[in-house]
Amino acid sequence: MSTPGISRRGAEIQESPIRKLAPLAAEAVRRGISIHHLNIGQPDIPTPVEFWTAVKSKMSNVLAYGPSNGIPELREAICSYYGKTDIDVDPSEVMITTGGSEAVIFAMMGTCDPGDEIICFEPFYTNYNGFATLADVRLVPVTSSVENGFHLPPFEEITSRITPRTKAILICNPNNPTGTILTDAEIAELADIASDSNIFLLADEVYRDFAFDGRQHSSVLEFPEISERVVVMDSISKRFSSCGARLGNLITRNRELMSVFMKFGQARLCPPTLSQYGAAEMYRNLDHDYYRSVVRMYQNRRDILMEELHGREGVFFLKPEGAFYATIRLPVTDTDDFAAWMLTDFSVDGWTTMVAPAAGFYATPGMGTDEIRIAYVLEEGKMRSALSILKAGLEEYVSTGRS
Amino acid sequence: MSTPGISRRGAEIQESPIRKLAPLAAEAVRRGISIHHLNIGQPDIPTPVEFWTAVKSKMSNVLAYGPSNGIPELREAICSYYGKTDIDVDPSEVMITTGGSEAVIFAMMGTCDPGDEIICFEPFYTNYNGFATLADVRLVPVTSSVENGFHLPPFEEITSRITPRTKAILICNPNNPTGTILTDAEIAELADIASDSNIFLLADEVYRDFAFDGRQHSSVLEFPEISERVVVMDSISKRFSSCGARLGNLITRNRELMSVFMKFGQARLCPPTLSQYGAAEMYRNLDHDYYRSVVRMYQNRRDILMEELHGREGVFFLKPEGAFYATIRLPVTDTDDFAAWMLTDFSVDGWTTMVAPAAGFYATPGMGTDEIRIAYVLEEGKMRSALSILKAGLEEYVSTGRS
Repeated sequence: MSTPGISRRGAEIQESPIRKLAPLAAEAVRRGISIHHLNIGQPDIPTPVEFWTAVKSKMSNVLAYGPSNGIPELREAICSYYGKTDIDVDPSEVMITTGGSEAVIFAMMGTCDPGDEIICFEPFYTNYNGFATLADVRLVPVTSSVENGFHLPPFEEITSRITPRTKAILICNPNNPTGTILTDAEIAELADIASDSNIFLLADEVYRDFAFDGRQHSSVLEFPEISERVVVMDSISKRFSSCGARLGNLITRNRELMSVFMKFGQARLCPPTLSQYGAAEMYRNLDHDYYRSVVRMYQNRRDILMEELHGREGVFFLKPEGAFYATIRLPVTDTDDFAAWMLTDFSVDGWTTMVAPAAGFYATPGMGTDEIRIAYVLEEGKMRSALSILKAGLEEYVSTGRS
Repeated sequence: MSTPGISRRGAEIQESPIRKLAPLAAEAVRRGISIHHLNIGQPDIPTPVEFWTAVKSKMSNVLAYGPSNGIPELREAICSYYGKTDIDVDPSEVMITTGGSEAVIFAMMGTCDPGDEIICFEPFYTNYNGFATLADVRLVPVTSSVENGFHLPPFEEITSRITPRTKAILICNPNNPTGTILTDAEIAELADIASDSNIFLLADEVYRDFAFDGRQHSSVLEFPEISERVVVMDSISKRFSSCGARLGNLITRNRELMSVFMKFGQARLCPPTLSQYGAAEMYRNLDHDYYRSVVRMYQNRRDILMEELHGREGVFFLKPEGAFYATIRLPVTDTDDFAAWMLTDFSVDGWTTMVAPAAGFYATPGMGTDEIRIAYVLEEGKMRSALSILKAGLEEYVSTGRS
């Protein structure tokens, strides 16, 4: 019996490079090895009690559909959140999505047709590849470098990649996987390019609260000259350690685009209902103290990362400025092999450390093969232990000539 | 300042025809009119207590990401559910999705590329239009008729629409918006067509538990000769009155296609975590008594619909066989106008009834303009009241020559 073929986009979609080491990790666990996970952005901090309380209070009779653009309470609460940093957002400019993931998909599909192009800066959040395949959009990478802390490449390198099919520039700021925060001058430069080429600027600002060393993150919403061409994609997953709630949102002041998002939203009916009440309560009731305590915690972990890894022979990265990631160059030629080896061949007192090889965060073949991404989502003691094992592993891997 | 244009698919995506009367409904409410909603498939029956209990018990410290294909407990519980009707499904053949909506989108994107075609039978669940636009797939409608209770059109009408770009046939069984259940012979006919043309058969079986008059619903999973070309799309929204949970699933025995669904799933990380525990508990603990009581309730409502509307002058439909919908021909030429008029101009003792004009459920322009869809999701007393108002409205509308 012949069977029908799967689609091209089905064949082409990238397997998650973060998750592809999972079988080796499972095998290590079967052998009795414990694993420190620095490979995935799953925060360890508790989901605030405000979430659980609100969800409990909404356990009503019928768990019904909500509005396609989200419950008004949540859209209003998000506007208040922006109001705290003097950014004026109207509830009509906010649409609730099923996670930041859906926000990115809708943003791509609302601005691009199949075959259109979006410029992005590699290394980038690897799931953009999957979303782009689903949307049948081509991601055109411009390479940023560990040498200057993954800040923007020169102006001409960006503009030279713009074609008639380019519909948007996509940024992640603060950045996953690099921890870089764009300066106002850099955002202004992108705003100029977007205006000159009449394209959109799509900004994933999921990590906007996590800015270190007294930095203030600037949102693309604060650049009035591009207000019609800006789309913000956001999520509560990291902000409130609520990854499993699957709630995010889109913000745009472009009314035509918002009406498109609404129609996309109607097709899939609504985002999860219960989580929205929990999210609204967190946005309303968590104040500066909460955000400050979370930033302090991530900054401490960043500092531990600096102490443990920075300046070691062959290891190179600049001090991460925000989010909870670092992309780090190691003195090895193939971090895919090194990360796998850490799981299959190395342990200290029954423990090993799992990291994400960085090649999966690049679209250009061959890039990032000597880099890893670390997510510092473990508390201080575990962080130190995880990094000490990583260093020991690196030393052995290099000294035995495997690098 | 020029602004960049939105995408073609953004411009083309259909506004929900079910939701487009919403502004008139809101205006009626502002005037003090109460509305019986027969226009939308939001069940009124309580979400089972098993759901709430399980969700409460999982209110843990960190609301974390779950597996991309869903928690194992839920996938296993779904297999047990199928086991009760002697259908053998393995957990590896099940993938949990964010609502039935995502299941349909993944099924379309896994089997089709932009520009490919899917044959479907109109009238069909209107949101398929939105999903098809997102997937850039063309829905090719074959018209079914109220005259034979919306059963399959002749074989040749179906096969004549197959082209080299046809990748699948899409059915909804039991059917939204018609309440029709395909016979085994009809499914076998579609299986033959799918085999002969080497295409997929995508079956939305969301309403499979709701089969009336002692009927037994047959799943496409029960036709071994097409096991490699079948995809079932399902949801807990209607089965367990849990629309706001946003949980559905895909089932396929085609391993290549399942691996594609997994990669799609990895891109969007995971379905809502909390809801999955609730769903698993409902699948595990609700027995025949639950399903029987729900079917009896919907069948009673179906019977009320028959008593109140069937056989009235100019009103035509056959007795619905399952789900909780009926598509009904009225003695009017434009049900868009009639449904709007019911909201703007008609009420009885401060109440009116909202129905869905059926044109939005057809892809062929001009079809269904004399039909409405009714969702019988109200309890007996309200159903009678809603239908009595509908009849009175229809009488006045027709007698004043508006039809």
